[in-house]
Amino acid sequence: MRNQTIEISGAYIESAFSSVGSKESEGPLSKYFDAHYSDDLLGQKTWEEAESCMIKNTLSGALTSCKKTSEDLDAIFAGDLLNQCMASSFGLKSFDIPLFGLYGACSTFVEGICLGAMCVGAGYAKSVGAITSSHFCSSQKQYRFPLEYGEVRTPTSQWTVTGSGCVIISQKETDIQISKVTVGKIVDLGVTDANNMGAAMAPSCADTLLSHFKSTNTDCDDYDCIVTGDLAYVGTDILLELMKKEGYDIRKKHLDCGSMIFDKDAQKVDAGGSGCGCIASVFSGYFYKMMKKKKLGKILLIGTGALMSPSSVLLGEPICGISHAAEIELSR
Amino acid sequence: MRNQTIEISGAYIESAFSSVGSKESEGPLSKYFDAHYSDDLLGQKTWEEAESCMIKNTLSGALTSCKKTSEDLDAIFAGDLLNQCMASSFGLKSFDIPLFGLYGACSTFVEGICLGAMCVGAGYAKSVGAITSSHFCSSQKQYRFPLEYGEVRTPTSQWTVTGSGCVIISQKETDIQISKVTVGKIVDLGVTDANNMGAAMAPSCADTLLSHFKSTNTDCDDYDCIVTGDLAYVGTDILLELMKKEGYDIRKKHLDCGSMIFDKDAQKVDAGGSGCGCIASVFSGYFYKMMKKKKLGKILLIGTGALMSPSSVLLGEPICGISHAAEIELSR
Repeated sequence: MRNQTIEISGAYIESAFSSVGSKESEGPLSKYFDAHYSDDLLGQKTWEEAESCMIKNTLSGALTSCKKTSEDLDAIFAGDLLNQCMASSFGLKSFDIPLFGLYGACSTFVEGICLGAMCVGAGYAKSVGAITSSHFCSSQKQYRFPLEYGEVRTPTSQWTVTGSGCVIISQKETDIQISKVTVGKIVDLGVTDANNMGAAMAPSCADTLLSHFKSTNTDCDDYDCIVTGDLAYVGTDILLELMKKEGYDIRKKHLDCGSMIFDKDAQKVDAGGSGCGCIASVFSGYFYKMMKKKKLGKILLIGTGALMSPSSVLLGEPICGISHAAEIELSR
Repeated sequence: MRNQTIEISGAYIESAFSSVGSKESEGPLSKYFDAHYSDDLLGQKTWEEAESCMIKNTLSGALTSCKKTSEDLDAIFAGDLLNQCMASSFGLKSFDIPLFGLYGACSTFVEGICLGAMCVGAGYAKSVGAITSSHFCSSQKQYRFPLEYGEVRTPTSQWTVTGSGCVIISQKETDIQISKVTVGKIVDLGVTDANNMGAAMAPSCADTLLSHFKSTNTDCDDYDCIVTGDLAYVGTDILLELMKKEGYDIRKKHLDCGSMIFDKDAQKVDAGGSGCGCIASVFSGYFYKMMKKKKLGKILLIGTGALMSPSSVLLGEPICGISHAAEIELSR
């Protein structure tokens, strides 16, 4: 089996910042997020502009938190779910920072953390950013139906998180380091239901998690928490089952950002949250703070992405999954 | 001014492979390309499947050229122009290679070379691939009008190249090395004409080129060739003018893949070629071979991208540009 894991040294998280919309602000993690927008349009004219504005404010917040300006970043790794990654392009253009544009669906945030940590760890950069966003309204418009249509949701469908998260990764030693990354492969189990992203992503998540366990010679006991991006309820059940078949019982250590961000019953989100902004806001808002407070010592953060587009679904193509993992731990 | 240039050591090009469609096969560079498809559908049912098939065959070709299998690649850096980068996802899924999905519009090929060389140079990987594609018919359908509509083209519009190119970057010493990369920033000069990509990309190309010259203390005389991706005729004129204003006369050293791939008059391509597959196929087909034959010693390869989507254009957003550069030279 190929070793997909890369060891990193000298890459620390200097700050993190999270922004969320109105529904996320009413959810169980509300108090952990750094910025709350009660107006999902953020005062803009379109959902796309609103998402760009959120990504812009999130990067500003992350820079301010560590007393940096955009001049201090050597590069930024960014992406989102909009066609041609428009939210990040327009959100970041005013910062004048060298940009690596990424697309890994909802795995993009951890893809950015992986590349950012590799870049800093190799000494290519002193400081870089990793940022992603998603917006319920721009996603519905692009992937499904405009909100005005009043689409009836299926029980397996997920609710795209309106949120953004950013981490600043630096050579400067802080309490939290990124010590290993595992790069995911495309996994295709032939899922074709565009309203069941969890099922499409879970097999790739299991693939990356198994690969990480094997190449690092670890298992659940070595982590305080195994955090997945947005498998939500349906995908989580599948992941637990797949891991059990491989001999790993990860139930006690597993948390999923898509299952945590909303109150399933009270907020009517069906299978749970999803989107590039889900793991980004929940990691930057909740898990990063838990680590700063030393309540968590070592986590494995796995971004889970469903590689599909409305056209690929119409063409009858399967929805493949891809998941990237980053081992993040206290450095002192 | 920020230093956007990263020095790389120990990253060599082990092989390159290019594939093109019917129109490119009739153009002036035809004999240099490795695979020619007279049927632009490549025997598939849809343009999207055809593009995926081309990217699949191109990676296979590049692997075969250096006697490698997909198992030998530690990662692949890939992207294309289709929404959610579907051509590369579906084209690469059967290879089972860890994937970093990228989106940098037509700058993606050089973005992949930059990240691939950084990854290999840092010792994170022994061998990686960088691959992109574009297809005239899938691009017209997505960005403009379906072919059947018979759109009237403007004189500044460019012809998306049906092509793909792949390079294998390895630690193993070969004749050709990637010695420096310069990461581009988003440049927005307020261009809003979606039929004039060259004008949108040229300012970002000048920005990256100036940054590279300054940080490496070089000018045109230090390169055998400064190769841009797909500025084509209109964008090239703007680049030459912008560089002249900054005191650099690059005319004698500059070549543009978008201007080289078609015969402007005989092939009726208006302003010239464009697309992620343009610089990918022309570098892998023509420039790589010229370097292998020692007819070129040192080139600066600049991928030029226009950050726009059909929705951003409808929303009246400007078309920003981004350009990444890689210094590629003979190693012995």
